[in-house]
Amino acid sequence: MQIRALTPADRPGLWAIVEPVVRAGETWALDRDMSEEAGWAYWTAPDREAFLAEADGRLLGAYFLRANHGGGGAHIANTGYMVAQDAVGRGVGRALCLHSLETARARGFRAMQFNFVVTTNAPAMHLWQSLGFAIIGRVPGGFRHPVLGDVDTVMMFREL
Amino acid sequence: MQIRALTPADRPGLWAIVEPVVRAGETWALDRDMSEEAGWAYWTAPDREAFLAEADGRLLGAYFLRANHGGGGAHIANTGYMVAQDAVGRGVGRALCLHSLETARARGFRAMQFNFVVTTNAPAMHLWQSLGFAIIGRVPGGFRHPVLGDVDTVMMFREL
Repeated sequence: MQIRALTPADRPGLWAIVEPVVRAGETWALDRDMSEEAGWAYWTAPDREAFLAEADGRLLGAYFLRANHGGGGAHIANTGYMVAQDAVGRGVGRALCLHSLETARARGFRAMQFNFVVTTNAPAMHLWQSLGFAIIGRVPGGFRHPVLGDVDTVMMFREL
Repeated sequence: MQIRALTPADRPGLWAIVEPVVRAGETWALDRDMSEEAGWAYWTAPDREAFLAEADGRLLGAYFLRANHGGGGAHIANTGYMVAQDAVGRGVGRALCLHSLETARARGFRAMQFNFVVTTNAPAMHLWQSLGFAIIGRVPGGFRHPVLGDVDTVMMFREL
């Protein structure tokens, strides 16, 4: 598995990863009817850089990295990870996160923060904690899960 | 004091409130060298509506209201408040917040969340708690204060 920067040529491949995640609406706080165009705009917004995991020419996952805030909050990174449906359970999320930690360090960030982890997303909750992230906050009923109803979200944080 | 929607004609008056807050860089996570144009773009971004407090034709403060996240996170509001330097201590922040709580309820939000309250901003910390907001998270060293160095930030939350 290799991880490399997203390019304009990856647009259809990225959407093949993003669309099922967005349509399911169970883990990300994005509009479930998001268009392909809006999805591309989200992943290529000027405040972030995006990377892809790839093996044998197949895209396995993606993440973005940005400053979580501007000004006096710009020393803390924020990231988001998506794994291709047919690549779940193969360590792609872990590989993306490790790559993002390294990239964030190289960019001079001092810490990384997740603003919105849905607590019913057990694999993510487990993975981030195994990678050194601590829960630093909890929003009661922060997410309207399409199947489970209102569930809590947490913020996670680790130094770099 | 009246509170009303921001209009294009308010652009210079809004900037007179925003510029000192941004330049000081002690309470908001915005670039300290933000231009007037970027400031206006921030306050009038398509994801938010903005309001002004006014008395005798003078602008006293401003706030914006938006959904804190999209999709399954869109039921929680997020707001930001700024008070004109020469109007501090006159209850403008409280009036703006009470107005925003009412507006958020009217828009159908179920709760309100602040993502980034600088803990050294004692008047804000006190005010939000007096208005029913609870601290639901803390980011260690989340803010690089230009005078005090790295200080914690907190997230705050209340139901509507």
